[in-house]
Amino acid sequence: MNLVRSNVAKMDGYTPGEQPRDRSYVKLNTNENPYPPSPAVFRAVHEFDPGRLRLYSEPLSLELRELAGAPFGLDRDWVLAGNGSDDLLTIALRTFVDQGGLCAYTHPSYSLYPVLVDLQGARHAAIELDEEFGLPADLVQQATGASLLIVCRPNAPTGNVFPLDTMHRVCAEFPGVVWIDEAYGDFAADSCLDFVRQYPNVVVSHTMSKSYSLAGLRLGFAFADPGLIAEMLKVKDSYNLDMMTQAVGAAALRDRDYMLANCQRVRATRDTLVATLDSLGFHTLPSQTNFILTRPPMAADRMFVALRERGYLVRYFRDPRIADRLRVSIGTDAEMAGFVQAVRAILAAETQA
Amino acid sequence: MNLVRSNVAKMDGYTPGEQPRDRSYVKLNTNENPYPPSPAVFRAVHEFDPGRLRLYSEPLSLELRELAGAPFGLDRDWVLAGNGSDDLLTIALRTFVDQGGLCAYTHPSYSLYPVLVDLQGARHAAIELDEEFGLPADLVQQATGASLLIVCRPNAPTGNVFPLDTMHRVCAEFPGVVWIDEAYGDFAADSCLDFVRQYPNVVVSHTMSKSYSLAGLRLGFAFADPGLIAEMLKVKDSYNLDMMTQAVGAAALRDRDYMLANCQRVRATRDTLVATLDSLGFHTLPSQTNFILTRPPMAADRMFVALRERGYLVRYFRDPRIADRLRVSIGTDAEMAGFVQAVRAILAAETQA
Repeated sequence: MNLVRSNVAKMDGYTPGEQPRDRSYVKLNTNENPYPPSPAVFRAVHEFDPGRLRLYSEPLSLELRELAGAPFGLDRDWVLAGNGSDDLLTIALRTFVDQGGLCAYTHPSYSLYPVLVDLQGARHAAIELDEEFGLPADLVQQATGASLLIVCRPNAPTGNVFPLDTMHRVCAEFPGVVWIDEAYGDFAADSCLDFVRQYPNVVVSHTMSKSYSLAGLRLGFAFADPGLIAEMLKVKDSYNLDMMTQAVGAAALRDRDYMLANCQRVRATRDTLVATLDSLGFHTLPSQTNFILTRPPMAADRMFVALRERGYLVRYFRDPRIADRLRVSIGTDAEMAGFVQAVRAILAAETQA
Repeated sequence: MNLVRSNVAKMDGYTPGEQPRDRSYVKLNTNENPYPPSPAVFRAVHEFDPGRLRLYSEPLSLELRELAGAPFGLDRDWVLAGNGSDDLLTIALRTFVDQGGLCAYTHPSYSLYPVLVDLQGARHAAIELDEEFGLPADLVQQATGASLLIVCRPNAPTGNVFPLDTMHRVCAEFPGVVWIDEAYGDFAADSCLDFVRQYPNVVVSHTMSKSYSLAGLRLGFAFADPGLIAEMLKVKDSYNLDMMTQAVGAAALRDRDYMLANCQRVRATRDTLVATLDSLGFHTLPSQTNFILTRPPMAADRMFVALRERGYLVRYFRDPRIADRLRVSIGTDAEMAGFVQAVRAILAAETQA
């Protein structure tokens, strides 16, 4: 007797971005924020009473959900709190997709989506983005039969956004649940968050990992009609958020202005970097995130290795659609100046070779 | 189109034990430890640098797994770390039970098991414990066709243990995975942990919620053959444990002696309480945990209400098999003295009425 479900046994797990320990790198590979979390986070940690840990955490994360919904005028019944947005995506598959059912998602996008579909034992409708990494005109038709359609906007790892009117059309026409993953939404010029009021089949998810500089805290939120939230609440682990995460996350949410100011700094650094890389012969996709996907004027995999040797860790994907590109997270101005210097040196060595 | 899977839509969620906010109670209802966590936990929280939170946590929890396995002579490959043992149980269902498959568990036991089976869309083999809440002799036959059999030992909410030789027989004879939930194992006289070396189909899970006084931290461990651990690692969320939980959990695991001493104190308090309740006409099941299941000499539901009015919160289950009993978590000696005083007063009022 095989002890393990066949869908699990035959799959590989998800591969997280490298967290190297062999030497010190400038980490531009996992889209972390280069700035520390809010001073309110430091205070919340220092003021936390560890004696409280003997008690269970509040299972429904009521305070967090209230704080997360408030900036958007949504009551806590419209909000689900997750142990990172990966927890929320797992809840999505388990709430909306049967084993043997069909889940649609675009490609290239977040590489966790197909892993979660395999874990659920479901079938894949991987819908190719067009040449410019836009949504294909027949997206909804291609997703026919799926009970869940996941769209990442702004998209990772390409960085671009899809037009709002296209998103409206998709949400109105798709008969199942549309999950709009706005993990990078705080860096973008606009958002689909308001859609949840209009479409009872739409969920929008956010994370505190990137914009709030809290990747190590594991905290994300899904926004949707209370009917959908109530169903997802059944599926989440009873105590999915520990007490410290709840306390620290609440402090960070109360200092939203700090987060917004950091997003602005990151965007400015990004735009300067893109202009410089343009002048060096790179082709960079328009980004509304804290990273860029850029095609260097040499083989991307060799540039990845050369950057690594010089202490700069970026992300290279073997996926054929983007194997000629590198994903570079936006660091501080000083880090990106060093990165550009390394790039120049690598290109100079390439020309001499 | 119904947006939600039918197994989810038709079920109720899990009901966690009450965490009341209306007034202050002596909480004897969710099996929390009355003693604070180790002084090492306080130090770990105070020394934690919140600036680190901008980076992702270590996805595989390598240090925690090493520390958790060490007292039992198991390498980290034999250990899985979860966001509480509820996370581990969810992983169990998702790794070992197909939608439409069969999952066996004993009854009465932890009320989360049937909820997880419903969430997976699987079928139930709920196997009744015998009159004395022992394992039925034909347990393995009753579990025929199941790919997973969950046994809680010591059992909750009854508190008793099943004989080790019976457990050996079950593990040797059952062809699927046997999951032995030792959430209360640190309070017991013996353990099935060593079974994992002998049976490649056995998983034993522990939690830091009770014995380590860390219910609010959400941290548990599953021990099994590295082959099974590798499969479960695919199923867990990539970053299921946040950075603070990893730091604080490691500190607590390094101070195992503190935990063991607290378990000893709790056991002593428990035995005194049981003797006192005996003298008041209660019938208490033999307990190897930090709680007792006891039958009061009056209707249990009315005693529950009367205790609550006097500020003592215990757990009452409507389940017909145990509806004549109350589950009482063991607090400090002072708390239990107060509890006994309340019990005496309630019984006296009952006699007068």
